[in-house]
Amino acid sequence: MKEKITVNKQYLLPFLKEDYHVYQAKVKEIHNGLIAKTLLGSDFLGWLDLPVNPKTEEINFIKDFSKKIRKEKAYLVVIGIGGSYLGAKAAISFLAKPFSSSKVIFAGYNTKGEYLEGLCKFLQNKDFYINIISKSGTTLEPALSFRVIKNLLAKKYPDTWKERIVATTDKARGALYTESVNNGYTKLVIEDNVGGRYSVLSAVGLLAASVYGINIDKLLKGALDAYKDLLNPSLDKNDAYFYAVARYMLYKDNKVTELLINYDESLNYLSEWSKQLFCESEGKDKKGLLVGSMSYTTDLHSLGQYVQDGLRNVFETIYNVENVSTDYLISEDDKNYDKLNSLAGKHFKDITGAAMQGVINAHTEGGVPNIIINIPSKNAYCLGYLFYFLEKACAISAHLLEVNPFNQPGVESYKKEMFKLLGLLK
Amino acid sequence: MKEKITVNKQYLLPFLKEDYHVYQAKVKEIHNGLIAKTLLGSDFLGWLDLPVNPKTEEINFIKDFSKKIRKEKAYLVVIGIGGSYLGAKAAISFLAKPFSSSKVIFAGYNTKGEYLEGLCKFLQNKDFYINIISKSGTTLEPALSFRVIKNLLAKKYPDTWKERIVATTDKARGALYTESVNNGYTKLVIEDNVGGRYSVLSAVGLLAASVYGINIDKLLKGALDAYKDLLNPSLDKNDAYFYAVARYMLYKDNKVTELLINYDESLNYLSEWSKQLFCESEGKDKKGLLVGSMSYTTDLHSLGQYVQDGLRNVFETIYNVENVSTDYLISEDDKNYDKLNSLAGKHFKDITGAAMQGVINAHTEGGVPNIIINIPSKNAYCLGYLFYFLEKACAISAHLLEVNPFNQPGVESYKKEMFKLLGLLK
Repeated sequence: MKEKITVNKQYLLPFLKEDYHVYQAKVKEIHNGLIAKTLLGSDFLGWLDLPVNPKTEEINFIKDFSKKIRKEKAYLVVIGIGGSYLGAKAAISFLAKPFSSSKVIFAGYNTKGEYLEGLCKFLQNKDFYINIISKSGTTLEPALSFRVIKNLLAKKYPDTWKERIVATTDKARGALYTESVNNGYTKLVIEDNVGGRYSVLSAVGLLAASVYGINIDKLLKGALDAYKDLLNPSLDKNDAYFYAVARYMLYKDNKVTELLINYDESLNYLSEWSKQLFCESEGKDKKGLLVGSMSYTTDLHSLGQYVQDGLRNVFETIYNVENVSTDYLISEDDKNYDKLNSLAGKHFKDITGAAMQGVINAHTEGGVPNIIINIPSKNAYCLGYLFYFLEKACAISAHLLEVNPFNQPGVESYKKEMFKLLGLLK
Repeated sequence: MKEKITVNKQYLLPFLKEDYHVYQAKVKEIHNGLIAKTLLGSDFLGWLDLPVNPKTEEINFIKDFSKKIRKEKAYLVVIGIGGSYLGAKAAISFLAKPFSSSKVIFAGYNTKGEYLEGLCKFLQNKDFYINIISKSGTTLEPALSFRVIKNLLAKKYPDTWKERIVATTDKARGALYTESVNNGYTKLVIEDNVGGRYSVLSAVGLLAASVYGINIDKLLKGALDAYKDLLNPSLDKNDAYFYAVARYMLYKDNKVTELLINYDESLNYLSEWSKQLFCESEGKDKKGLLVGSMSYTTDLHSLGQYVQDGLRNVFETIYNVENVSTDYLISEDDKNYDKLNSLAGKHFKDITGAAMQGVINAHTEGGVPNIIINIPSKNAYCLGYLFYFLEKACAISAHLLEVNPFNQPGVESYKKEMFKLLGLLK
C-alpha cells in the first residue's frame, strides 16, 4: 500500500465557525490559476512540475558524486543560507539516527567568525569537498564563508582544489556562475522559476541529501506521488488544500499563530524549513500567520503552560510520525520506587502515543484547535511526499490571503540597510 | 570595570504610547511585595536570595566532583526535563566553542526510544556517571529514562554503580529521595521554595555546568552583582524592571508576541530557557506574551520576511553580545568575483554589527519595536548576571499581568489526560 500524507480533521472541525466547503470554489479557482499560470508570481512555478520532469543528467551526476565522496570517507561542506540549506538540513535531521555523526557540514548561514575558525580547525586534517549554493554568488553570508573555506581547500589541495568544488547556481549569469566557468567547477543549476524556499527537490537539496546517504530516487518518487494525488482540487480528496483552507479559516478567526508540533526532535529542522516556506510566502502586506515550532513532550515542560492557558490566539499543527521503527521496551524494576512498573512491557512509543493523545485532549479542551498531519514513516519516500504536500498547501494558502507566494520584498529591506552601513551600496 | 547587563531603549521608546514612568508606582509596590513576601506565589521566592546565600558545602562537593570526573575523562549523563535541564543546557551552549565536543549529555527530556537506544550504544564503551534531577522522582520522561540508563550503569559497574549516581531531588521526601537514601546515592537538594524554571543558579544547574568546565564561582558572582544592582526599584536605574514594564506596555498595545533575537546560535538555548521562564510564568488565565526565538542573520532568510512586513503584533528583544573575543578576518581575493573586496580587512564581527544595525533600522521602520539587552561578553560572570536579571524581570512582568509567576497549572492538564490513558490515574 502506498504511504500517503493525510490530515486528521477530528480535533479541528469543532473549532471552525463555518463549513469549510464554502472555500471550495475559491480553491478551485486558485488551483486552475496555478495550472494556467495566471496568478501573482506565476514566473516562479517551476517547483510544481519538478517531480514530473526530473533532470536525469544532474541526478546521475549527484549519485555518482555521492558514491565517490562516500567511498573516500570525505566531508562535504555545504555553503548556503535560507532555502539553500534548510531543505537538505531538514532531510538529514529527519532521517539521521541519534548519536550518529554526519559527514555533511553546513556553513555560510551566519556571520560568525568563531564558527568559521572552529570549522577550519576541524577540517584541517580531514578530506573535504565544497558545495557552494547561491543563485547570485554575492549573498553576503555564503560568499564570505566561501572565501575562507575555499582558501583552506586551495591550500590543502594546491593542484586539484578546483575539482573539489560543486557550484549550484544560475545557469547563465552571476558572480558564482562566472567564477565556476573560469575555474572549471562542476555546475548544478538553480532554475529561474524555482525560488529558494521551493528548491529542496532540485539540485539545491538533492546533492547534500544524497551525500549523506538518503535515497533520492525514493525522495523524488514520494514527491511524484504527492504531485499526482494533489491534482484533484476537491477539499475532501486533497488534504493539502484542506490544510490550506483550515489555516486560512483559523487566521480569519484571530488564531494568528500556528505552532508546529512534533514528538521527535529529529523533525525540528523540518519545522524550520516549513517556517521559512510559510512565513516568507505569506508574511507580507501586514498579513500572514506567524509560524512557531515546538518539540513535545520536551517543550510541554516549558511552553506548554502558555499553549494550555495563555492568550487564545494560537492553534497547533502536529507533524505526527505514525510508525516508529526502532523502539525501546520499558522494563520492570525490582524496587519500583517510581511506581511506574505498571508500564513495564510497553514501549516508549506507547508513552509517546498516550502523551500525544493526552495533550490533544487537554489543549483542545483549553481552546486550541489541533490539526494533525499524519506522516506514515520516517523514510525518504514520505519525506519527499511531505515536502511537496507542504509546498502546494503553502501556495494555496498564500493565494487565499491574496499575497504573492513567491516573492520576499521584506528580506531586501534589511539587506539594503546593511549594505548602506557596509559601504556596499552607492 | 564591572560588566553589567543593560537595556538600550533607543529603538523602543518611539513605540511606547505613554510615558513608562506611569508604571513606577506599581513596580515599586511589586518590588516591596517581593521583599515582604506578600504577593501571589510568595512561597516560591527562594531564587531571589540564592546568590546571597550560596550553599558552600554543596558547591564544594560540586567542584570536587567536577574535578574528579574531568580528570577521569568520564561522561556525565544529566537526566531531567524542563527546568531540570534547560539552565545547564543554556549555560553550556552559551560558552561552548563551535565544533568542540561535550562530555555532558542530556537525556530524560523526551519519550523517544530511538534516542535512548543511540545513547546506550554510545555509552557502551565510555566511562560515565549519572546526575538524575527530579523533585518527585515520578515525572514520566526522566523516570523512564533513568530506569534504562541506570540498568546500563549497573551492568557496567556491578560493584560501584551506586557511587556513580548523583540525585538532585527533594530534601526529605519523594520517590527519588527514598531511592537515594536506600541506595546511598550522593544527594543534592532542590529546595521547596525554588521552582524548576528558577533553579539554574542552584545545584540543579550548577553541577552540569561545572562538570562541563564552567567556572561556577564567576557565574554566582555575576548573579550576586545582579542581585545587588537590581535592589533599586527605580525604572531609570533598574533595567530588569524597565524591561518588564516595556514588555507589559507592548502587550497592552497588542504586541502579543515577543521574538528573542540573537546573532550567534550559541545563544539559542538561552532563548529556550527564557521561553520557559516567561511563558510558564505568564501564560495563564488566557493572558500572556507568547515568546518565540530566532537566530539572525540565519533566520532573516526564512522568518525575516514576516517580521519585516507581516501581521504587526510582534516585537523583538535582542540578546546582543557586545564584545566578541575570537574572530576572523575577511581577506582580499585576487579575482573578486563576489565584488566584496571592499570588505577585506574587516572582521566577521563587523559584518554582524552592520547586519544588526541594518536589521534594527529596517524592522523599526517596518513597525516592529526593538529592545536590546546588552550582554558585555560571553563569559560565566555575564551569564550569571543575565540569568538573575531575566528571572527578576519575569517576576515583575508576571505580577504586572496579575498572574502568579510561580505556578504552572496548565502543565498538569495534559499530564492528567496522559496518566488516564496510561492507566496511571485511578
